Amino acid sequence: MNDKQVYLSSVGTALPGEPVGNAELARVLGANEEWIEVFIGTRTRHFARDLATGEVRWSLADLCAMAADRAVRAAEVALEDIEFVVLGTATPDTLMPATVNNVTDQLGLDQVPTFQLQSGCAGAVQALSLGRTLITSGEYRTGLVIGGDVCSKHLDTGRDLTKAAPSDLVNYVLFGDGAGAAVLSDEPSGEQVALRHVLNRFTGLGRKPGQVIEWFGLADRHDDRQALTEDYKAIEEQVPVMAVEILWELLGELDWSVDDLDYLLPPQLSGRMTRKITEQLDVPGATEISCVAETGNNGNALPFLQIERLLEKMTAGQKALAVAVESSKWIKAGFALEKA
Amino acid sequence: MNDKQVYLSSVGTALPGEPVGNAELARVLGANEEWIEVFIGTRTRHFARDLATGEVRWSLADLCAMAADRAVRAAEVALEDIEFVVLGTATPDTLMPATVNNVTDQLGLDQVPTFQLQSGCAGAVQALSLGRTLITSGEYRTGLVIGGDVCSKHLDTGRDLTKAAPSDLVNYVLFGDGAGAAVLSDEPSGEQVALRHVLNRFTGLGRKPGQVIEWFGLADRHDDRQALTEDYKAIEEQVPVMAVEILWELLGELDWSVDDLDYLLPPQLSGRMTRKITEQLDVPGATEISCVAETGNNGNALPFLQIERLLEKMTAGQKALAVAVESSKWIKAGFALEKA
Repeated sequence: MNDKQVYLSSVGTALPGEPVGNAELARVLGANEEWIEVFIGTRTRHFARDLATGEVRWSLADLCAMAADRAVRAAEVALEDIEFVVLGTATPDTLMPATVNNVTDQLGLDQVPTFQLQSGCAGAVQALSLGRTLITSGEYRTGLVIGGDVCSKHLDTGRDLTKAAPSDLVNYVLFGDGAGAAVLSDEPSGEQVALRHVLNRFTGLGRKPGQVIEWFGLADRHDDRQALTEDYKAIEEQVPVMAVEILWELLGELDWSVDDLDYLLPPQLSGRMTRKITEQLDVPGATEISCVAETGNNGNALPFLQIERLLEKMTAGQKALAVAVESSKWIKAGFALEKA
Repeated sequence: MNDKQVYLSSVGTALPGEPVGNAELARVLGANEEWIEVFIGTRTRHFARDLATGEVRWSLADLCAMAADRAVRAAEVALEDIEFVVLGTATPDTLMPATVNNVTDQLGLDQVPTFQLQSGCAGAVQALSLGRTLITSGEYRTGLVIGGDVCSKHLDTGRDLTKAAPSDLVNYVLFGDGAGAAVLSDEPSGEQVALRHVLNRFTGLGRKPGQVIEWFGLADRHDDRQALTEDYKAIEEQVPVMAVEILWELLGELDWSVDDLDYLLPPQLSGRMTRKITEQLDVPGATEISCVAETGNNGNALPFLQIERLLEKMTAGQKALAVAVESSKWIKAGFALEKA
């Protein structure tokens, strides 16, 4: 094992436009506001696409570049110090070029390695893991790690949703768009928060996917299949159990006791699910850091939005632990932060 | 810099079905056989989708699992020794789950980290780079690196292509489907080939993409835009120049002279383009290892198909250098192999 330390110097985030509340969303979709409140438990979210006109106002690259630019400025490193760019996303703007390369171009960076990880809720954690490994390997000293998602291409507000099945409609009220980024470095600077450990482990052997997001090609784009499907029963049953397993596994790896935790960053599925999971995690001594009720489930942006809220509170010597579950094909993920 | 060595123990590949020749392809597409011969210079390719019926016979996950299984068997390591799985692709089966997780499931693996890199021609090199870094970081000892592409969703053989513009038709004759995989390890075993160096560098600042592959969502799937577009003029002008730059940069990094090279693995765009680039690379002392004229351009599978042909010839002490250019947003890529 390599015992080189990796530090998170800064975080930046970007949420498109004004928050969209449940009353407005219910009106546009022809849905029931109370159903959104109760079943999803999310109050607001942000969309890169104008709900009324369908116009795409921000691409994923736009939001990621905005978040990354804010992270670089906050880190007080020069752009030239950035030696790699890693992006985790489930919803790239195009298949090629990889969106990370348009982000790198927008930032004004050149001659650096770029990596784009295709992943859902675990993608931001995978990006942190890859960024950490690039630094612990000794190849690089400072780099950018980004996570973001824009569901615009699947948000067909022109559809008549009044007769949509709840399993279809839920995708319109669960998700949001956004991006987040962090500067990682091999020495303590800026926020001086050590990225102590990252967990990223596939546990889907022989298990059906809990979530599928399709893309349509030229040949199959007129097929009448649903673009997003969730096995909500499996998610509701499995995610809280896996979250508890991840918490205890991370504590074991770190040799931390549950009483050492000052902050807990639980999985951010929806306002309602996150409340349920946090109860089951049962770490009363730790302050919960959640955002999904205000930001919506914007996938790979979520951990960065949580870290941003965490950094506002964290003081020297404090410890935080984040738990994430990717239900698509069952990935256990999480990470630990400790302020120097 | 970390001076830990990483070794390629074995390679496995998978090409779907029988090779499809130019006469058959011309007949199905309503294209001119001679135009394919002269303009593309590729004789055969393989398709995961049945050309006549449109039936999808192999998914990307199927081909990748087949190639990976062959690589693991050839490496004579036990499946339990595989500690990570990395996949590079431009054409995932779905956006979620990431295809790498279905591959891992098909292989019968569990409890390992998985990474899927979204990339075009440079993706296989990025996967090798990431696999190498996971090992040099000291975190892992043995892992699987996979590259593959299946263009099925964009191959609409039901279209009337007799009036398609050459820039549209070319996508039907340039590409093929396939997958390849390699077992990487921290000690010499199997083929005993050291992966000496990997180059992966974005050089697209301020440059327009040379290639774009779109995906369609629920909201925009009926749009009448082209799914694949290439700027052939930019590709024809830039790729040979970049290939020469990559060759010399790699030689410089390795402190190798051009006369040290026993084998050269040039970029595999098409039979015609590869011939042109190889001429410009001008390494008469090295044996050229190419496959595209027989396999078609199957993207992230290509470097593994080349390595498979290389390993049949390579003897102790010999050196090989691979050059790849991703024209989508201009990535310089390449790697060096040396047999112990």
